[in-house]
Amino acid sequence: MSLSRREFSRLGAMGMAAQMLPLGMAQGSERKVGYCVIGLGRIADHFMRGTKLTTGSQITGLVSGHRDKAERIAAEYGVPKSSIYSYEDMDRMRENKAIDAVYVALPNSMHAEYTIRSAKAGKHVLCEKPMSTTVSEAESMIAACKAAKVKLMIAYRLHYEPTTLRAIKLVQEGTVGQVQSIVSANGFNEKAGEWRLNKALSGGGPLLDVGIYCLNAMRYITREEPVKFAAYVSTIDHDGRFDSVEENTSWTMQFPSGILASCTTTYGAQMPGFYRVYGSKGWLQVDEFGYEGLRLRANYAVADRKRVELDEPNTERDPMQFKRQADHMTECILRDQTPKTPGEEGLRDMQYMQAIYKSASSTSAS
Amino acid sequence: MSLSRREFSRLGAMGMAAQMLPLGMAQGSERKVGYCVIGLGRIADHFMRGTKLTTGSQITGLVSGHRDKAERIAAEYGVPKSSIYSYEDMDRMRENKAIDAVYVALPNSMHAEYTIRSAKAGKHVLCEKPMSTTVSEAESMIAACKAAKVKLMIAYRLHYEPTTLRAIKLVQEGTVGQVQSIVSANGFNEKAGEWRLNKALSGGGPLLDVGIYCLNAMRYITREEPVKFAAYVSTIDHDGRFDSVEENTSWTMQFPSGILASCTTTYGAQMPGFYRVYGSKGWLQVDEFGYEGLRLRANYAVADRKRVELDEPNTERDPMQFKRQADHMTECILRDQTPKTPGEEGLRDMQYMQAIYKSASSTSAS
Repeated sequence: MSLSRREFSRLGAMGMAAQMLPLGMAQGSERKVGYCVIGLGRIADHFMRGTKLTTGSQITGLVSGHRDKAERIAAEYGVPKSSIYSYEDMDRMRENKAIDAVYVALPNSMHAEYTIRSAKAGKHVLCEKPMSTTVSEAESMIAACKAAKVKLMIAYRLHYEPTTLRAIKLVQEGTVGQVQSIVSANGFNEKAGEWRLNKALSGGGPLLDVGIYCLNAMRYITREEPVKFAAYVSTIDHDGRFDSVEENTSWTMQFPSGILASCTTTYGAQMPGFYRVYGSKGWLQVDEFGYEGLRLRANYAVADRKRVELDEPNTERDPMQFKRQADHMTECILRDQTPKTPGEEGLRDMQYMQAIYKSASSTSAS
Repeated sequence: MSLSRREFSRLGAMGMAAQMLPLGMAQGSERKVGYCVIGLGRIADHFMRGTKLTTGSQITGLVSGHRDKAERIAAEYGVPKSSIYSYEDMDRMRENKAIDAVYVALPNSMHAEYTIRSAKAGKHVLCEKPMSTTVSEAESMIAACKAAKVKLMIAYRLHYEPTTLRAIKLVQEGTVGQVQSIVSANGFNEKAGEWRLNKALSGGGPLLDVGIYCLNAMRYITREEPVKFAAYVSTIDHDGRFDSVEENTSWTMQFPSGILASCTTTYGAQMPGFYRVYGSKGWLQVDEFGYEGLRLRANYAVADRKRVELDEPNTERDPMQFKRQADHMTECILRDQTPKTPGEEGLRDMQYMQAIYKSASSTSAS
């Protein structure tokens, strides 16, 4: 694309010039934003592959307890060996100018510590969800990033995902009419021995890891914050997997407008993620909260007896969601903007999950 | 089909002879069981058309406040004019030997009175759901039928419907493994002026009329009785429709095994009925609680990595569900058996709906 200087100025006046430049060049520099990945598990691999698809983000550092694994990955991504850190010495990254930000991809209970240490090292933080295991940890993370004047973004990748954005837009435009209620589920049958089943690492059961997708979806679809929570937790399979966390959680939330949301999550069943929004004119459903394969369906009235039926599968493949997420973080860093999913977004989910657990503990006692 | 006497005796020994005879002939008589329909609204029409498909049931009486309408229907079904009653004089049906049973198809608040009057007139009772508007009414109905030694069956037509029976069997056989949770919804956008929106006639909001399908389905799928209830009600549309009943109800139930069920119902949105059962090996879903168009889908593991996918639409058309329901009631009368869905089944749903409303009123106050 080539633009005359005059055209470019006009776009600039419309606030569009920056958007039309490749990321990483927005401020006249060709330098990419460098990310140090903390924790080299499965999701870190998705993120790193995602950055390969970007023009503005690159992997410039690694933190791992496994030096061999880290060196293999460093070679693949062109990370110098000197930018591989252990958990003990990662604070040294403060001196590493090639690292602008970190991606915290550790078990939940370690999010707070590594976010705060990274902030103190002067690095922006992209932290996986759930943001933390407690409300107070989340608050400390926000405070630390604020004090260090670094960005804090929670990795709610679906906020940057086209099918999700389309669903939000359709609902907000009133396509299905006045929303009355929403149902949502997300879960899977977890294997024994996984870190998620260890409360010391995960902070809780399926609610924190997969139920959070239902919770967050109810909020981005309604654009309201829930005010009432009623929940039950249960464990049915006594096979050793659920000694420290519960197997199932189902809860109902009420929003200020009166919209009711019913959600369920599990580590004990095949439960493909979905939400279905019920409105006065029709319904809208999104299937899948995973890395690919989202599908939007809807059926709504547009005029007397005339109905529209939508069926829009998203054919984008993994790691496109991670690419989009990295693009947003990079853009926020380069333009000094607040991410769409800042720490405060993660904090709210932590507060609501705390309310859900609180309700469950009172209903279980009754 | 023709059977030799010997074959017939063998079937008889297997308890099957009676089933193979056309109903109404099971006890050597060709007389059909005669039903008097009380209330000639929409659902009565489905029932009456359903009896036309049976060999053992027929319409032999009508109770209506509209003599003209009743005479027109009487002519169609061969009911003598002398067997048309008003609400005031229907107790006279005691003397009418052609009437064995009544079908109570009135607004909910009238179910108790007309069930009890019919029992006192010596007639068996098939009563629409919800059985009544309160628990105590339901108890009175059961007591009255017991005292009069007549059958009381609640018209839970899906208990006699093939797709529902198949779903129950698949779940009970462990096809989807250990069930963890179920989600269900059923509702519609009710028009202003309908009797359902008048609490004096309906006894309550969408829970009683359409939410009851979710509630009852959770019970026939789990074969358990719920022990805990957490609910919210809300009204969003202040357009005059919801002055006496609420617009939305969402609730979560816990069963003794730990299974959690999330249900939602509305009179303010397009909400096609469904339930989805989540088990350790897979999921099973039934769409539609209506008079036709049910569809069973499932996806479950049968061996390492091998999965089975079911998609079984039920092509039976209305009024087949009503035919099957009439067949069952007729069979119970002829063989002096207790219906599969007796008054006690209806009473339980009334108790649970009372618990749901009680929870909603406490959560709404908080």
